[in-house]
Amino acid sequence: MSQLHASPVAPALTQSWLSRYQAVRSQSQALCAPLLPEDTVVQPMLDVSPPKWHLAHTTWFWETFLLNEYAPGYQVFHPDYAYLFNSYYNSLGSRVNRADRGTLSRPPLADVLAYRAHVDAALSALLTEPEDLPATFFELLELGLQHEQQHQELLATDIKYILSTSPLAPVYTPLNKKSAAGHENSARAIPPATFLQVPGGIHRIGFQEEGFCFDNELAAHEVLLAPFELQNRLVINGEYLAFIEAGGYRDFRHWMGEGWDLAQAEGWEAPLYWVQKEGAWHRFTHNGLQPVDPAAPVTHISFYEADAYANWAGARLPTEAEWETAARYFGATTDEGTWLESNLLDPQPLPADADPTQCHQLLGDCWEWTYSAYHAYPGYQRAAGALGEYNGKFMVNQLVLRGGSCATPENHIRLSYRNFFHADKRWQFTGIRLAR
Amino acid sequence: MSQLHASPVAPALTQSWLSRYQAVRSQSQALCAPLLPEDTVVQPMLDVSPPKWHLAHTTWFWETFLLNEYAPGYQVFHPDYAYLFNSYYNSLGSRVNRADRGTLSRPPLADVLAYRAHVDAALSALLTEPEDLPATFFELLELGLQHEQQHQELLATDIKYILSTSPLAPVYTPLNKKSAAGHENSARAIPPATFLQVPGGIHRIGFQEEGFCFDNELAAHEVLLAPFELQNRLVINGEYLAFIEAGGYRDFRHWMGEGWDLAQAEGWEAPLYWVQKEGAWHRFTHNGLQPVDPAAPVTHISFYEADAYANWAGARLPTEAEWETAARYFGATTDEGTWLESNLLDPQPLPADADPTQCHQLLGDCWEWTYSAYHAYPGYQRAAGALGEYNGKFMVNQLVLRGGSCATPENHIRLSYRNFFHADKRWQFTGIRLAR
Amino acid sequence: MSQLHASPVAPALTQSWLSRYQAVRSQSQALCAPLLPEDTVVQPMLDVSPPKWHLAHTTWFWETFLLNEYAPGYQVFHPDYAYLFNSYYNSLGSRVNRADRGTLSRPPLADVLAYRAHVDAALSALLTEPEDLPATFFELLELGLQHEQQHQELLATDIKYILSTSPLAPVYTPLNKKSAAGHENSARAIPPATFLQVPGGIHRIGFQEEGFCFDNELAAHEVLLAPFELQNRLVINGEYLAFIEAGGYRDFRHWMGEGWDLAQAEGWEAPLYWVQKEGAWHRFTHNGLQPVDPAAPVTHISFYEADAYANWAGARLPTEAEWETAARYFGATTDEGTWLESNLLDPQPLPADADPTQCHQLLGDCWEWTYSAYHAYPGYQRAAGALGEYNGKFMVNQLVLRGGSCATPENHIRLSYRNFFHADKRWQFTGIRLAR
Amino acid sequence: MSQLHASPVAPALTQSWLSRYQAVRSQSQALCAPLLPEDTVVQPMLDVSPPKWHLAHTTWFWETFLLNEYAPGYQVFHPDYAYLFNSYYNSLGSRVNRADRGTLSRPPLADVLAYRAHVDAALSALLTEPEDLPATFFELLELGLQHEQQHQELLATDIKYILSTSPLAPVYTPLNKKSAAGHENSARAIPPATFLQVPGGIHRIGFQEEGFCFDNELAAHEVLLAPFELQNRLVINGEYLAFIEAGGYRDFRHWMGEGWDLAQAEGWEAPLYWVQKEGAWHRFTHNGLQPVDPAAPVTHISFYEADAYANWAGARLPTEAEWETAARYFGATTDEGTWLESNLLDPQPLPADADPTQCHQLLGDCWEWTYSAYHAYPGYQRAAGALGEYNGKFMVNQLVLRGGSCATPENHIRLSYRNFFHADKRWQFTGIRLAR
Repeated sequence: MSQLHASPVAPALTQSWLSRYQAVRSQSQALCAPLLPEDTVVQPMLDVSPPKWHLAHTTWFWETFLLNEYAPGYQVFHPDYAYLFNSYYNSLGSRVNRADRGTLSRPPLADVLAYRAHVDAALSALLTEPEDLPATFFELLELGLQHEQQHQELLATDIKYILSTSPLAPVYTPLNKKSAAGHENSARAIPPATFLQVPGGIHRIGFQEEGFCFDNELAAHEVLLAPFELQNRLVINGEYLAFIEAGGYRDFRHWMGEGWDLAQAEGWEAPLYWVQKEGAWHRFTHNGLQPVDPAAPVTHISFYEADAYANWAGARLPTEAEWETAARYFGATTDEGTWLESNLLDPQPLPADADPTQCHQLLGDCWEWTYSAYHAYPGYQRAAGALGEYNGKFMVNQLVLRGGSCATPENHIRLSYRNFFHADKRWQFTGIRLAR
Repeated sequence: MSQLHASPVAPALTQSWLSRYQAVRSQSQALCAPLLPEDTVVQPMLDVSPPKWHLAHTTWFWETFLLNEYAPGYQVFHPDYAYLFNSYYNSLGSRVNRADRGTLSRPPLADVLAYRAHVDAALSALLTEPEDLPATFFELLELGLQHEQQHQELLATDIKYILSTSPLAPVYTPLNKKSAAGHENSARAIPPATFLQVPGGIHRIGFQEEGFCFDNELAAHEVLLAPFELQNRLVINGEYLAFIEAGGYRDFRHWMGEGWDLAQAEGWEAPLYWVQKEGAWHRFTHNGLQPVDPAAPVTHISFYEADAYANWAGARLPTEAEWETAARYFGATTDEGTWLESNLLDPQPLPADADPTQCHQLLGDCWEWTYSAYHAYPGYQRAAGALGEYNGKFMVNQLVLRGGSCATPENHIRLSYRNFFHADKRWQFTGIRLAR
Repeated sequence: MSQLHASPVAPALTQSWLSRYQAVRSQSQALCAPLLPEDTVVQPMLDVSPPKWHLAHTTWFWETFLLNEYAPGYQVFHPDYAYLFNSYYNSLGSRVNRADRGTLSRPPLADVLAYRAHVDAALSALLTEPEDLPATFFELLELGLQHEQQHQELLATDIKYILSTSPLAPVYTPLNKKSAAGHENSARAIPPATFLQVPGGIHRIGFQEEGFCFDNELAAHEVLLAPFELQNRLVINGEYLAFIEAGGYRDFRHWMGEGWDLAQAEGWEAPLYWVQKEGAWHRFTHNGLQPVDPAAPVTHISFYEADAYANWAGARLPTEAEWETAARYFGATTDEGTWLESNLLDPQPLPADADPTQCHQLLGDCWEWTYSAYHAYPGYQRAAGALGEYNGKFMVNQLVLRGGSCATPENHIRLSYRNFFHADKRWQFTGIRLAR
Repeated sequence: MSQLHASPVAPALTQSWLSRYQAVRSQSQALCAPLLPEDTVVQPMLDVSPPKWHLAHTTWFWETFLLNEYAPGYQVFHPDYAYLFNSYYNSLGSRVNRADRGTLSRPPLADVLAYRAHVDAALSALLTEPEDLPATFFELLELGLQHEQQHQELLATDIKYILSTSPLAPVYTPLNKKSAAGHENSARAIPPATFLQVPGGIHRIGFQEEGFCFDNELAAHEVLLAPFELQNRLVINGEYLAFIEAGGYRDFRHWMGEGWDLAQAEGWEAPLYWVQKEGAWHRFTHNGLQPVDPAAPVTHISFYEADAYANWAGARLPTEAEWETAARYFGATTDEGTWLESNLLDPQPLPADADPTQCHQLLGDCWEWTYSAYHAYPGYQRAAGALGEYNGKFMVNQLVLRGGSCATPENHIRLSYRNFFHADKRWQFTGIRLAR
């Protein structure tokens, strides 16, 4: 388990396990509160899972890895749920095909909520007397919390996709004030884009701090980098619009071959969720259809689009080693970013007076595509047992994204955090950071 | 319109239009009453539509063809519903792809029920003063009722399929007494199968009575038949089991080539919904998983299976002209059959003492596959306008089924009624009648 | 076997078996003579088989059904050929997937020709002393000849398709004189289209003559027809162009639903092989790309197009019973038609002075789509053994075509001959005969 | 162009351009000499191109990039060939879909050979007076030679695949002596596998020599490596058999998730071309079906299999930086390897007395899968114009292979050479080198 939990459990923390557990679990349900039961069932594309499934699958994780192992006399809520809500663990037997998640109406949302309550009661009971539990329990507990936070981000983005498929353009949450303020500001002034220098040499990347990390952030190791420059902020809609208007989607020279073929086959002309309406670009958001804000970071673009944009702009995407080195060099913190907790669920424009000599938005707002394959770090070892399937088996054919987004819980991110998706995916809050 | 409504509206009937309308509309909602909102959303295969969609589409039909035309000042419930709930009428513009019906969570069931109430109020208001309405209105009214009854059968069969996909095997309605009684009887005695003679010669088929018929039942016309024999009852599960156990699903010689290829590709070994459990065949029913009753008619079989069974049994399927001629010759009535109104939703065994010299189950219980392509009758004319798409454009590549089923409203059937499905379909209550 | 061979072998005929056999076998190879070895390998669509495969498969038929059974001591040419060249006989074991026929370069054409020579030698030897052979041998011999003639038509149409896929538009055979003359005539005058009356009543259809017929033409039986009219000639390109120019391919109201969907998905705008070149319609032919002759019969159209055209023209397609009844009524003969032996491989315009009170082109030039499903006739019985798969297993989901085409050997056709294809097929020489 | 040709043309070399050109061009045709025309047409899977296409496409390259630009008055051989034989250059207009390459019988092989002769004559004429040609011409000349050599390897592997699809198991070339000798030796003794140490630190990789390289080998740059060990030889069939027999293909824990899913879907149980025959494993080779030699390197395995094997063996695959560093450290040369010129077309066993303290087979025999994504090196720039599509647009979603194979021309390889394929490809001569 040590690959999945880097440090021993500090005794002082154990007092707060129960409250942390309850906070994380509540957050998942809060995300689904604005939904109708019908919204929690559907799967409009293969990448998306029904919210009901997310709520149940995260609960299955607690039941399978913690309660069944550590809670004496625990009774599973329903014998068929292990089959219904296993995601991809071959170690744990057969399961519903991913493509069929949206065809199952049963169990209904109410039963899933009862399942959550059943598991929460059992786990809370355990946590009231944590002193009897072994260290491995707390490692799994930490992992369960991190796992549920990952599904919170997926809940946010899957819900967005689900609502977007309706011609009724339903609103998930009405616009809150900070976002409105941002929009007003942006009409006035946009901070200039500058390139900031990062020195070359031998740098150390990977998890080097106290506390939890995923196994894929290990082992920390040294990398040799040439000096490079990173842009001081994310690429914004206004800049991306210039790419669109310059014919960026019609000129294969900017594109990877597979990206070009896909963009042609799918008829891509703009990021996901962008539509022309009365002559102006709009975006489907959690707040329904909204005009495109030129000052806000561009999001919902594939690696192919990020890479094509960078080529067109005469720059490139950073590698993940460059990104992490720069983030450490610039002392990036989570303070400035937009996170799940803000409930804005949209990347926000920089303030007009943001310091152009500083590097902004490294953490939060948008995941940043890197030009690094999601491969194992030197010295990486898969965990034993079912949890060995958590990360290791995905370590080919995907690309690393860094920095978290407006749908990431703020305390979930780290400078060494490695997210990963295939190059064609667009439904996450993905954005562009230029390097050169 | 005359193709869709064969006779003028009898004045005496107009008094009952309102009550008929309300009865039919209530029946649709009653069918959905045992469902949870989640059940009304999903589309586990292309042939199946979400119950929510059926409830809305039938309502759209009333709004589009009657209220928009005949109700002065009628306001449509929602401007997007015409797009969302048009089924296949090219005349009426674009629509949601059939394959995407199960990806739409909105409008939720509550809104669809409000839509129904809105339309019902407007139509009921119209029907309180029917004397001002033209004859064409009543022709459309009749068609709307028939149309909604057709969707009631689809509701029953689609709901069954939806619930069947869950490993939880949910129960739609608990078993009622008649069915239980039938099971007990069947253990005692099964009426023998006999072949009854029907004389050849020139017979008249097609709609020849008073009242409503669909355009596809016209024109009534004469056909020349050789003498033939028809079996006195439907083929039963016990007989079909003998076919299975004799290797019927493993011997291509009984099968149409396309049926054989499909059966191999899909791994068919028994009718749809049959599963082996603890060494015995069970069937998924509206009452959950139940043991196969050898005395009950076999159902949920494709044309390919019906035809293969008939070949194996040394018989054949009747043509639709033979079927209708026999039904008229034997004086078939709806009295004996199982219909939607019984709420049994399963074909029932014949009483053990059923007269073997009579022909049973021609109407009700199971639709009977005929070996007749669903083609236009001589003299058939498509209606003008959108309703010309109701039947005519389907008149190739499908086969005719006759007689109605346990999911058909009893007053919906006629001796001349032509149902039609592709040869591979199994989710309707389809059965086998042998001829030779 | 009696289903496949309707009459005993007449003694007088046996003297000519050898010459008939050799003539038919030579014809198959003559059809391939203009081809390069490369042309004989490819399969540009699933319906098409490589010419090399046709040459081998017909040979396999002789080897399997005649030589292996009736030639003492016969040695098969190669033990793997039974696997390679079985078409669809499940009775005879596994075989190459149809979709993979074009991926096999071996055996090369030279080996296939050697295979033919080997089998021809053995069969010719048998036929030099026919008196020792049983009647069943001659029934199979007749069937083998008929089978090979069927593949000659497929060779002609498959070769056309293969050559058409090349942008080099290769020429199979240069235009011969009759065709050129036809084109000149057609510029001058086109015989008018008239509708000729056929009386109703009880008619007999199916094979009623001496000699060979396929099992699917039996049993001859009586049908009852209403009086109808049949057009005196095939629909010509000029008439079909009017349909195109009137927007026939853009108006769903003329079309069967499945046909309309397919035409949209495939982007059909004209018959197969039609292309616009320098503002004028041209057709790919066995003679390369040629201007569309308005006077020649339209060909290479699907049932969907034939049916849509008929709807647009205010007429309909005949049933097969109507077609055969009319052909018998009008005394149709093969004298006037264009057949494979002409080597024109294109339907020809009627002479300008063709008698408008006579019915022309019933036999030859184009197969005529009927609005009859290809189902078994009353009393039809599949043959025992592998040959029972010859026709019977295809008797659903296809439509009957009648009359033969310019690619049919003249002595292969009969008034009762039933050809059959799925409604979407266009690569055969298919045409339109109107009824009303 | 400098990315594609790293150094100016040395004057002394120009004398030999003509002979080099003729040697390379002859080699391509020599590879096709054992083929029948039919063999040169087919495309049994998407990755494979017909040999005829390779012969024509390489010729199109010369015509397009050299003759059309530098040969005054050059007449293209055929105006349609630019469409027919462009591979993937969007810059150069539309082209035949890759999936359709095997459906084109025309132009026949003879015409393609005439095309080659036409182009060879024109290019040879140019090369007889090379002094008038600019430096850019020679850069393209070099690239054309390298390009044609790349297609020679594809010819060898595509021909193997084409012949393998036939149940006739045709032989391309009979076994030659060295191979036979190798088999005998191997039965006696197999050199042990040892791990050899390579020191860590900063190493320089990428092209650093004189002469030609592809743009993807630039810029040479420094990498920081931890110390590692590399196995002294390729993994052999005997070792891989142990993996198979230990259930390696049935245990998901060794596999990448996408690899496992694919292996299940495709039913992989052994490398490509392996079949069980009379209880023993055989391999389809250019010499037909042969018993598996336990001492020969395993080949025709995907990255997924290589990676799963390495996991099972408690080792891992090297990165490309490790591989190149090791190859430079061990002073790998082409002397020992098996190359295209040997005409063995199969990786060969090491001699039994090979020194276990030396690293063998780094160059030749099998391409070695690395665990490095095929991405651009730091400082990489795509070339301008159509040749910018040569390498750059493929730089995502593929993996790097190193070292060349028995189908690579010996003078085509370099220590910095980067080959690349998707993780699922098996039809190249791919093998396994372990690291740890």
